[in-house]
Amino acid sequence: MENISWNKSFGGWHKQYSHHSAVLNCDMRFAIFLPPHIAQGAKVPVLYWLSGLTCTDENFMQKAGAQRLAAELGIAIVTPDTSPRGEGVPDDPEGAYDFGLGAGFYVNATQAPWNRHYQMYDYVVNELPALIEEHFPVSDKRAISGHSMGGHGALMIALRNPSRYSSVSAFSPISNPVNCPWGEKALSGYLGDDRTSWLQYDTTELLKNNQQPVPALVDQGDQDSFLEEQLKPDSLAEAAQSIDYPLELRMQEGYDHSYYFIASFIDDHLRFHAQHLL
Amino acid sequence: MENISWNKSFGGWHKQYSHHSAVLNCDMRFAIFLPPHIAQGAKVPVLYWLSGLTCTDENFMQKAGAQRLAAELGIAIVTPDTSPRGEGVPDDPEGAYDFGLGAGFYVNATQAPWNRHYQMYDYVVNELPALIEEHFPVSDKRAISGHSMGGHGALMIALRNPSRYSSVSAFSPISNPVNCPWGEKALSGYLGDDRTSWLQYDTTELLKNNQQPVPALVDQGDQDSFLEEQLKPDSLAEAAQSIDYPLELRMQEGYDHSYYFIASFIDDHLRFHAQHLL
Repeated sequence: MENISWNKSFGGWHKQYSHHSAVLNCDMRFAIFLPPHIAQGAKVPVLYWLSGLTCTDENFMQKAGAQRLAAELGIAIVTPDTSPRGEGVPDDPEGAYDFGLGAGFYVNATQAPWNRHYQMYDYVVNELPALIEEHFPVSDKRAISGHSMGGHGALMIALRNPSRYSSVSAFSPISNPVNCPWGEKALSGYLGDDRTSWLQYDTTELLKNNQQPVPALVDQGDQDSFLEEQLKPDSLAEAAQSIDYPLELRMQEGYDHSYYFIASFIDDHLRFHAQHLL
Repeated sequence: MENISWNKSFGGWHKQYSHHSAVLNCDMRFAIFLPPHIAQGAKVPVLYWLSGLTCTDENFMQKAGAQRLAAELGIAIVTPDTSPRGEGVPDDPEGAYDFGLGAGFYVNATQAPWNRHYQMYDYVVNELPALIEEHFPVSDKRAISGHSMGGHGALMIALRNPSRYSSVSAFSPISNPVNCPWGEKALSGYLGDDRTSWLQYDTTELLKNNQQPVPALVDQGDQDSFLEEQLKPDSLAEAAQSIDYPLELRMQEGYDHSYYFIASFIDDHLRFHAQHLL
């Protein structure tokens, strides 16, 4: 693991690392924000942030403004990349933004040529946390959050691994990927045409059979241009209601899909996670 | 003037506009953050932010995290571009990052071919504020701040126009451009070889003869890789001390030249300006 950049930030540290991922068969970059508390020898809990289509580890760290409150609360933040990267990692043949590089969708691909590298589910759930917990002064308390494709990833991963995360939140998540164009393209590409294999990655479907809830907060802007076609918060709300799942879904008036929206409410998400992490 | 984007942000609005600049002889883009107070008919004061080399109107709005507190305090923020732009605007012949496009240095060029467009001093001091005060619900209370090249711009402009700004602040300013490589390249290119013509744009020089102080706050990271060669905070401190100028210069331990540094202290700058603006 190699430290490739660091910046002091709100008394803590923003650092980027590259490492070889055995799961993804390539070198990967991630970023970590470490709050000032670690200088006194504290072990801090970790919020994992999963970004949306086209993003890297940098978007959230540069644009969300999360470090101020994370530094105060004493929470580390880890931002993985959104797909495997590098030479030999196949991309969408037409370079589309919504498949291949920057669009791993947090699934384990089963179809060639994607299955050799696109194993983002295992990377985010297992390999990356193990690496973080080995090398940084963090506890094994974890929360997970994300935006859009990453909101899908966060909710889906928390629902499938309730023992690993004390809380989950999302901004503008792709809530029902088996029923929207982004999800159908990604899931058919990575998993093939058998739609039953897709259901394990669909938050709305997973909710229906949930046995062990993880407290959840979701924010969605009502001026989000992807709302109806791609995000489908109504499906999410309905599935949660049907089993009385502890999910708070907030429609935010006037907000869109951008990081200006995320920045406006990230403090609420950090405080929500802090209730469960600290 | 055309509104080309808008995003709701912390209950207020981030908007980008394009307009024709008569002073710069080209179309320009700027961004404005309007706090929620304007919805109740309030006229709010404006903080002008001048960015550093290579930046546009976007860097500060996306990365500084200023909107949270500006929304609370009721301060609008305007971010101009850092040079004239567009077809016909000459750039550095070798495409250098520190001259030409993205590097207007907030001066009025006198040398061909730069003088036809590179009049950023007049644009920032006069044309842009007039446009803002005509089209938006803002008062004529103004403050000015900036980073690196923009820190130079903010300090220099405030010192030359003490009646127009109630306070000034800067992060990592180029404090003595007549005596550093970035400044010498820009000032000789835009103004020619007569160094006496450069002095009107040099903060350290202007300070020495100051008669009407504008309260000033400067933050400088002590791990900034440009500290010694380009920024020269010691020259600034010495000039301010020599005339007892009301400038607070804070050396911030461990911080670098990045927006992670700016974000860490922008709230202090907003509160400083609020004391004088509100």
